[in-house]
Amino acid sequence: MSRFFSEKYKNLAPYVPGEQPKDRRYIKLNTNESPFPPSPLAVSAAAEAAKTLQLYSDPDCSLLAAEAARAFGISEDEVVFSNGSDEMLNFAFMAFCDSAHPAVFPNITYGFYPVFAELNRVPYTEIPLRDDLTVDPEDYIAAKGTVFLANPNAPTGIALPRSELERIIRSDPGRMVIMDEAYIDFGGESCVPLTRKYDNLLVIQTFSKSRSMAGARLGFAIGNRALIRDIQALRFSTNPFNVNAMTMAAGIGALRDREYFARNCRLIRENREFIAGELRALGFEVTDSETNFVFARHPSVSGETLYRELRARGILVRRFDRPETADYNRITVGTREDMETLAGTVREILEGQK
Amino acid sequence: MSRFFSEKYKNLAPYVPGEQPKDRRYIKLNTNESPFPPSPLAVSAAAEAAKTLQLYSDPDCSLLAAEAARAFGISEDEVVFSNGSDEMLNFAFMAFCDSAHPAVFPNITYGFYPVFAELNRVPYTEIPLRDDLTVDPEDYIAAKGTVFLANPNAPTGIALPRSELERIIRSDPGRMVIMDEAYIDFGGESCVPLTRKYDNLLVIQTFSKSRSMAGARLGFAIGNRALIRDIQALRFSTNPFNVNAMTMAAGIGALRDREYFARNCRLIRENREFIAGELRALGFEVTDSETNFVFARHPSVSGETLYRELRARGILVRRFDRPETADYNRITVGTREDMETLAGTVREILEGQK
Repeated sequence: MSRFFSEKYKNLAPYVPGEQPKDRRYIKLNTNESPFPPSPLAVSAAAEAAKTLQLYSDPDCSLLAAEAARAFGISEDEVVFSNGSDEMLNFAFMAFCDSAHPAVFPNITYGFYPVFAELNRVPYTEIPLRDDLTVDPEDYIAAKGTVFLANPNAPTGIALPRSELERIIRSDPGRMVIMDEAYIDFGGESCVPLTRKYDNLLVIQTFSKSRSMAGARLGFAIGNRALIRDIQALRFSTNPFNVNAMTMAAGIGALRDREYFARNCRLIRENREFIAGELRALGFEVTDSETNFVFARHPSVSGETLYRELRARGILVRRFDRPETADYNRITVGTREDMETLAGTVREILEGQK
Repeated sequence: MSRFFSEKYKNLAPYVPGEQPKDRRYIKLNTNESPFPPSPLAVSAAAEAAKTLQLYSDPDCSLLAAEAARAFGISEDEVVFSNGSDEMLNFAFMAFCDSAHPAVFPNITYGFYPVFAELNRVPYTEIPLRDDLTVDPEDYIAAKGTVFLANPNAPTGIALPRSELERIIRSDPGRMVIMDEAYIDFGGESCVPLTRKYDNLLVIQTFSKSRSMAGARLGFAIGNRALIRDIQALRFSTNPFNVNAMTMAAGIGALRDREYFARNCRLIRENREFIAGELRALGFEVTDSETNFVFARHPSVSGETLYRELRARGILVRRFDRPETADYNRITVGTREDMETLAGTVREILEGQK
């Protein structure tokens, strides 16, 4: 830290992304990337856009907004785009949290929420999950402040039904609810259809997972016009050209290729059920994931041991050190071949531990 | 604005980017874009990167940092990248300004500085330029707070020599100086060579202008390691994957193609001297620009009239309403052909005004 760094930020503990080691080739099952490349329509649109990069990208993202409006059955002014959904989450913390409106989220969820709260010097409350790692809606119905819920939740993978989320949203019209739907396309029920019914709901999604565009950085929020205008005011005060021209073009291509998207989501769900079944057969406790990852622990092998043994065999998964989840590993659902390799490797590790 | 928008931001007046009208084809000389496409190396690298967008981009920007280190004669940990230089400027306002360290910048400069100050609720002082639109170094030697200087300045185009900037930096080692060198490659003297000598200097540059990558969004800052670590702490607390994989690849390609870069910078300088000469011959007062734009006013035609008449003839330029510069237009230097069209059109307008 330099002697010039503002007091405001001296105690920041930045987010630590999943490791990207370069020492050898790994089967990477640690950052919930898609095993499939982006749609050919996205790839070719991005390549075409690269030819005219001397021109600024459209700060209004007009063509992309029009395509998203068609895809989600909304109007163009009910959506706003960001440089990945992390940027949008930060905008939401800026816009809708302050000392009078603290942030409220589960103690086990996306690890970036407390970082955003600290960055914006917003007080926050972490509400414990139930012992079975599920979210209790009653906790959020009772909560004061701005609620952030990842649905499905990470790293547990468990989703709440929309009816339960609607109970939370409806219970206090004076309280904002931010739904982080990064993994929604793999099984959960999206709250997008509720955004016209409730003006206290903002839904955030990403192109990183189900649309295979993690490296392109494209997130978006859907909500009523007034909420979208709030985010736009922050966006135009921070970085009006936050979405580059190639990503914008790729996003349009990805939205248009509905068959490819549907096929990939289906394959991920199938491979998830396959690997969940394999792991359960090996004695693992596996949460009911609606995402592109599984969250699993074994009664006789510690999470840390499994993580280390997999890594030594060229397979990267992710684990989190907090006591409630230290025995679990979060494993991205990849291709069927990768899942078969994983199952075989886990079996081998378990046999070696006997 | 929604009823949920935080009091903190209720009075934001967002930045207004240069217009991008879609009603007809214009010769666009209003946003200081390059008239040349990006290097073929940049285009092909971006297209290649588009094929594997399912993977996250490298949050450490390692390969790009290595290339920049070679290009600028620095170490990889003396540079940090951002999603355009606007994002980096915002990081600098966050990191190095607060109520004890107000921001100080010219009253006529990049219009985003006051927006960043408001966004971060940082007090700021705008120091008037001299009557000839030049920056007086003595003002900044005397100033308390964190100094932001665009060099060359915008929209005037006028640069200060490095020796004068060094006097400012050296005069108070307890004061941070942020040099915004968006236009440095078109003629001014960069302060990058001073970054190892002074730990209170951060230099910000962009790939938007001289490297024809406005649509790719790539900015960077060079400074001593402690300052870079400060920015990295904010970056990893906001958006660790802020630079997408295609832009990173394009940036490497652009840095490698030194001949193309040098040729484009030379052509812009030649075309700038050409159009400045033409305008002067038509009676304009033209500032001594070291950028890819000229800033000009005519004794007998108002800035607003010239702007309007050019627009009606399919040429977009930019003007700013504040009284000191209301008679000027800022005109991007384009191809020789565009500059000839501009000169002819201006001549026609002047003749019509007689």
